[in-house]
Amino acid sequence: MRDAPILLTPGPLTTTARTRQAMLMDWGSWDADFNTTTASVCEQLLGIVQASASHCCVPLQGSGTFAVEAAIATLVPREGKVLVLINGAYGERLAKICQVLGRRFTPVRSDEVRPTCAAEVDRLLADDPTLTHVALIHCETSTGILNPLVDIAEVVAAHGRGLIIDAMSSFGALPIDARQVRFEALIAASGKCLEGVPGMGFVLAEKHALSAAAGNAQSLVLDLHDQYQYLARTGQWRFTPPTHVVAALHAALEQYQQEGGLAARHARYQENCRILLEGMATLGLRSFLPSACQAPIIVTFHAPRDARFQFKDFYERVKAKGFILYPGKLTEVETFRVGCIGAVGPTQMHAAVDAVAQALRDMHVVDI
Amino acid sequence: MRDAPILLTPGPLTTTARTRQAMLMDWGSWDADFNTTTASVCEQLLGIVQASASHCCVPLQGSGTFAVEAAIATLVPREGKVLVLINGAYGERLAKICQVLGRRFTPVRSDEVRPTCAAEVDRLLADDPTLTHVALIHCETSTGILNPLVDIAEVVAAHGRGLIIDAMSSFGALPIDARQVRFEALIAASGKCLEGVPGMGFVLAEKHALSAAAGNAQSLVLDLHDQYQYLARTGQWRFTPPTHVVAALHAALEQYQQEGGLAARHARYQENCRILLEGMATLGLRSFLPSACQAPIIVTFHAPRDARFQFKDFYERVKAKGFILYPGKLTEVETFRVGCIGAVGPTQMHAAVDAVAQALRDMHVVDI
Ligand SMILES: Cc1ncc(COP(=O)(O)O)c(C=O)c1O
Ligand SMILES: Cc1ncc(COP(=O)(O)O)c(C=O)c1O
Repeated sequence: MRDAPILLTPGPLTTTARTRQAMLMDWGSWDADFNTTTASVCEQLLGIVQASASHCCVPLQGSGTFAVEAAIATLVPREGKVLVLINGAYGERLAKICQVLGRRFTPVRSDEVRPTCAAEVDRLLADDPTLTHVALIHCETSTGILNPLVDIAEVVAAHGRGLIIDAMSSFGALPIDARQVRFEALIAASGKCLEGVPGMGFVLAEKHALSAAAGNAQSLVLDLHDQYQYLARTGQWRFTPPTHVVAALHAALEQYQQEGGLAARHARYQENCRILLEGMATLGLRSFLPSACQAPIIVTFHAPRDARFQFKDFYERVKAKGFILYPGKLTEVETFRVGCIGAVGPTQMHAAVDAVAQALRDMHVVDI
Repeated sequence: MRDAPILLTPGPLTTTARTRQAMLMDWGSWDADFNTTTASVCEQLLGIVQASASHCCVPLQGSGTFAVEAAIATLVPREGKVLVLINGAYGERLAKICQVLGRRFTPVRSDEVRPTCAAEVDRLLADDPTLTHVALIHCETSTGILNPLVDIAEVVAAHGRGLIIDAMSSFGALPIDARQVRFEALIAASGKCLEGVPGMGFVLAEKHALSAAAGNAQSLVLDLHDQYQYLARTGQWRFTPPTHVVAALHAALEQYQQEGGLAARHARYQENCRILLEGMATLGLRSFLPSACQAPIIVTFHAPRDARFQFKDFYERVKAKGFILYPGKLTEVETFRVGCIGAVGPTQMHAAVDAVAQALRDMHVVDI
C-alpha cells in the first residue's frame, strides 16, 4: 500500500486507518449484527443535533445529493412551493432539484461573499403565503461561507413554514441544536465532517412531517417515507445497504465520540482553519471571504495573479508533496480551495502550507 | 478482527481479503488517479458482455435498485410503455418502479417455477404496438430461476422495441453477449457476481438510446444521460462517488480477470451449486425449482415440514457454525435460500452442507 496523499478536499476526505479497517469484514445485510450497526448509527446521528425526540433518521444509499433530492421529493408535497436561498453552487443545485422534480420554487440569489439575510427571508415569506418550505445551505461549500441558520430558522418557524437544511459540509462540526433550530429536514452524508467514507447520505426528518409524506415522491428509491417505514418495521434497509460504508461510519462515530463529540471536532477544525489562513497569508495568498462569515470547513483563496501560476501545475506539485487540494467553484474569479476537515490536525496543516510555499517557489510565482 | 461468517446470500456476499484491502486507502474524487480507476472499471464492465462498441457504461451511486430505476426513468420516454415480465419479487419491483415513475406499463405475471415464455412476449408485442420497451429479470433472485434471455431478446429485437435487462444477480457469471443479445440497457451492481462490495450500480446503455434520452428523467440524481455526459466530459462522477467501493470493485475485477473471466466464474458457481444441491438432497432437503431452469446463483429449498423447524432458530445455528443463509421470498410456500456466489468454493460449500446437517440434527428435525 503506497502512502496516500492527504485530502484537503471537502469530502471524500482523509479518514483514520481505524475507520478504513472497519471495512475489512463482510456483513450480511439481513443479519441482526448489521441491523444493530444501522440502529446505532442512526441513534448517534440524531444525538449529535439533539433531535432524538423530534426527528427520525433516514439513511439513504448514494451520495449526499441523493439524500437532498430525496428530502425535497418526499417532504415537499406536489402542490408545495419552496423558497430556495442561493449564494453558491450548492444552492443552485437545490433549485435545479426542485425544477427537475416539478416542484414550484422561488429562487433568491444573493452575493457569494455575503451570508443569506434572515430579514429578506422574513419579507419574502410574508409576501408569498403559498410558499410551504424554505431550503438553504448551512455551509456553502463552493466558497466556504456560513449562512445564519439560527436566524433563518427562527423566521421560518415564525411563519409556520417547513425548513430544509443542506448541512452536508457542516454536520457534526458546526453546532446545530434541534430543540432550538426548528427544521423539517436536515441532510448530510457519511463522508464529510463525520470522517466516514462516502457512499451514504441521511436525512433527519421531523416525525410528523415524515409520516404525513406518504405518496409525495415520484421515485421508488428516493421515497424516504417508504425507506423509513421499512427500516422501522424490520430494522433493515429497504434495498441493499452499502454495508462496508455503514460499518466505516459506525467506526468513525465511535472515534467522534471518543474525541469529545461536536465541541472537540469543531475546535480541531477551527484550529486547522486558523493555521491555514495564517500560513497562507504569510505567503501573500488572500482568502476570498470576509473572516466573519468564513466557516472552518473549507477556504477559498484567490489564485495568484502571476501568469506562471497554472492551477493544474500547482495541483500536481502540491500533490507530489503529499496533499490534494481542490479547484475553485466560482465562475467570475480565479480561485482554489483548501479543506480544513478530515482526520488531520496542526501538523498536516502546517505541512500543507509548506508544500504550497515550495510549489509556488518552484513555479517561480512571485506576483501573488 | 473476529472471523466473519461466510455469506451465502445473493449480495452482499463474501469478498476476498484483497478486495477489502483495496479500501484501506482514501482517494480524491477529483484526482486523475481516481478517474483512471473509474475509466478502467467502466471499460472492463463493457468488456465482460462484449458491449464496448455498442454501449456506454454509466456507473451510479447507490444500490442496484437505484440503477434499475435510473435506467427506466432515463430510457423510457414519458409517453413510452413498458411490457414488464414478472415471475418473482424483482419483476414485481420493475412494475412498481414504472408505476411510481408514472410510466405506462403492462405487467405479465407467470408462475414462479416457470421461466418467462418468449412466444408469449412475441404475441403481446404483436398485439400492442404502443409498447416501446420490454423489461425482464435475467436471473430472478427471489427463486433463483433463469429466464430465457436470448430468446426473449430475439423477439424484442424482431419487433423493434427496446429491451431493459435486470442482470443484477447474473452479470459476470452467466454468459451474455451484446453482439448477439440486443439490449437498450443492462443493469447490475458492484456487490454481486463481480464479488465487489455493495454501494454502486451500473447501467450498460445502448449509445444512441442514451444520447436520445435527455430530459426524460424526472430526477436529477437518477438522470443517466446527465451522469454520462458529465463523466464523458470530465472523467469524473457527477456527484461524490463511493470511492472505496469503486476501488474495491476495481480490485475485484482484477481478480475476476486473473481467475479466467466469465467462463471461470461461471464454472466455479456451477460447481458450488452442484455441491449444494447434491449435499442438501442427501439430507432430504428438496429444492424448489426444476433443475432445468435453476441458475447457479442462488437455490431455494423447501423448509422441512417438521414443526421443530423454525427458520430463525435454524438460521442462528447455521450462523454459529460460520454460514449466513437467506430467508425465502415466497409468500405461498415455506422456503429458505442458499447462495452459490461470492469468494467461496467447494470447501465452503461442503462445509455449509455439513453445518446445515448438524443444525437440523441439533434441532431434532426429522420430518424433512
Ligand atoms: C453543501 C453541499 N451540499 C451538497 C453536496 C453534494 O454532496 P455529494 O457530492 O455527496 O452528492 C455537497 C458536497 O460537497 C455540499 O458540500
Ligand atoms: C434481480 C435483482 N434485481 C434487483 C435487485 C436489487 O438490488 P439492490 O438490493 O442492490 O437494490 C436484486 C438484489 O438482490 C436482484 O437480485
